Amino acid sequence: MTQSSKSPVVDVHSHLYPNLYIDLLRDRTEVPCVRSNPDTNELRLVNRAGENGKPMTPLLYDISTKIAFMDEHGIDISVLSLGNPWLDFLPSETAGDVAKTINDSTNELCKTYPGRLFFFAALPLSAPTNVIVAEIFRLQAASHVRGIILGPGGLGEGLDDEKLVPVFQAAEEICMPVFLHPHHGLPSSVWGPCCGSYGQVPAVSLGFPMETTIGLVRMILAGIFEKVPNLQIIVSHAGGTLPFLAGRIESCIEHDRVLAAEGKLKSDRRTVWDILKNNLYLNSVIFDKIGLKAAIEASGVDRVMFGTDHPLFPPASVKTNVKAVGDTSGGTDEYDMIMGGNAARVLRLF
Amino acid sequence: MTQSSKSPVVDVHSHLYPNLYIDLLRDRTEVPCVRSNPDTNELRLVNRAGENGKPMTPLLYDISTKIAFMDEHGIDISVLSLGNPWLDFLPSETAGDVAKTINDSTNELCKTYPGRLFFFAALPLSAPTNVIVAEIFRLQAASHVRGIILGPGGLGEGLDDEKLVPVFQAAEEICMPVFLHPHHGLPSSVWGPCCGSYGQVPAVSLGFPMETTIGLVRMILAGIFEKVPNLQIIVSHAGGTLPFLAGRIESCIEHDRVLAAEGKLKSDRRTVWDILKNNLYLNSVIFDKIGLKAAIEASGVDRVMFGTDHPLFPPASVKTNVKAVGDTSGGTDEYDMIMGGNAARVLRLF
Repeated sequence: MTQSSKSPVVDVHSHLYPNLYIDLLRDRTEVPCVRSNPDTNELRLVNRAGENGKPMTPLLYDISTKIAFMDEHGIDISVLSLGNPWLDFLPSETAGDVAKTINDSTNELCKTYPGRLFFFAALPLSAPTNVIVAEIFRLQAASHVRGIILGPGGLGEGLDDEKLVPVFQAAEEICMPVFLHPHHGLPSSVWGPCCGSYGQVPAVSLGFPMETTIGLVRMILAGIFEKVPNLQIIVSHAGGTLPFLAGRIESCIEHDRVLAAEGKLKSDRRTVWDILKNNLYLNSVIFDKIGLKAAIEASGVDRVMFGTDHPLFPPASVKTNVKAVGDTSGGTDEYDMIMGGNAARVLRLF
Repeated sequence: MTQSSKSPVVDVHSHLYPNLYIDLLRDRTEVPCVRSNPDTNELRLVNRAGENGKPMTPLLYDISTKIAFMDEHGIDISVLSLGNPWLDFLPSETAGDVAKTINDSTNELCKTYPGRLFFFAALPLSAPTNVIVAEIFRLQAASHVRGIILGPGGLGEGLDDEKLVPVFQAAEEICMPVFLHPHHGLPSSVWGPCCGSYGQVPAVSLGFPMETTIGLVRMILAGIFEKVPNLQIIVSHAGGTLPFLAGRIESCIEHDRVLAAEGKLKSDRRTVWDILKNNLYLNSVIFDKIGLKAAIEASGVDRVMFGTDHPLFPPASVKTNVKAVGDTSGGTDEYDMIMGGNAARVLRLF
């Protein structure tokens, strides 16, 4: 994969659950937790009541397995992140300290493979705002932190929550990007009574990107990008569905009477297109050239970053995503930008 | 708009509520109904409890207003359809007869402007299946019917409902396309506590296309396109978000263990791409060239059909949609196909 690249190949969407974090989840009896299947002794990470969860294989926690995956696919650098449930389940009073410990241990872990690993830190979102903000500023000094991960659930009430503004402002102040990643998807009622026989397809293929899109649009409608104009967000899965729906969303905003009555349609407002081109980076985890092309046209070729979603998608899909970059980018320079140049520049991966 | 067209310009997404239908809703005291605002005497169509509804202006029911809109925008032919709530609210025992009356009166209405109006008929979905199927076969004889409208709710349990198979089979047997149109969008919980100040934007710009996509994917996962292989569906809003997410959905399907265990991953199964290119037509109501281009690439330029969503989007947005067709299509022939040629061919509009 690297032979044609002048820039390093960078994966900005790569999950790892550090041992310390798994221990936390193993100590829990309520969801989210890590449970042992009594028949097979297999460990499973269960996020929500009623879920079967996912198997806790070395792919999810072992760093040498991650490096082997990177080597196999010619990935020079991975920017690691926790998968959900992140630190949501922590009691308010201990969340700040636990977040420090987890983030510091991940920072140390990154040092074990010099130049190859960086990470998006997890925030103590159940703690008081000042603790969350303090952790953001503290992370500035951590050598391998390159952003913070956040889900569309935010503090529990979504990304349009006024209480999140100081958090976004702290990230903006120190130019720390937010990695926006799906959280819980959509309410299960939308998948209907037959859904049990559809496996993970509805929740993962539709619920996640739709949740991400809804989170972004709620931010836009709440005026977050007016309040925090330089906020930079790296959006999972090529923006959810935002590049495809941006025209429809803009048309709806432009003609909405309630927004007009609330004075939200000033002539200098930021449009969805402005935000796509100035505040969002889109990762390339979209598995086809049609979606990727839409992402590139919506945000610009300098704002799309390669990712794998490893280990939560099978390794074969990495090739699908690399092929989409090859099929879409106009020449080697654009290919290199998407495969790593953009991430290396924006996230200062050197 | 017509000067460059060799084919007629056809609008396949154009709503009209005939007077007979409005009378039905005015007679109702429970939602859905048409209510008079006691302060202004304005009539509003209220679909669901708690909604403010939309104003029942002549745009929604007056045929000469529709023709004036068509003339203003150079639209030669409109294929009319009821908006929701369609006939869902009718008691099972009378639904069949009411559907006949409404469809027959719309057929007569279309005759008043020869060559300019056709329609997608509404089905008595609350009636027993044999009554629904009988209405489909009966509609074959109606001179101006060119398909049937259906929402992702189906008979109440979604489009993957086994009870819908005979309905789809009847449509397939007489080559009658289904016009798939959003129904109720997504559960309001996904828009969050601030949603009251966002007007119609979340529900209309996101809820509708997401609901359509979910409906289609549930059909695919239930194997409806294996059971009814020649079913033809004209999908609103450029396929919801299906063209953008198709790669992700295919990747999820391909690697899903539950689907594999259920024997649903046979090598000759129809992929999402096969279905896009063989069973779906996408209308062009997507308000931008990025989404429209994705739709054309996903289904083919011979399967995309111009639409306006009049009168539920403001007239100005018609120009946005026409411009997107101009910006996207590769030359006059392709422009003509999308603006009307495809619809005229597929729906036999002569």
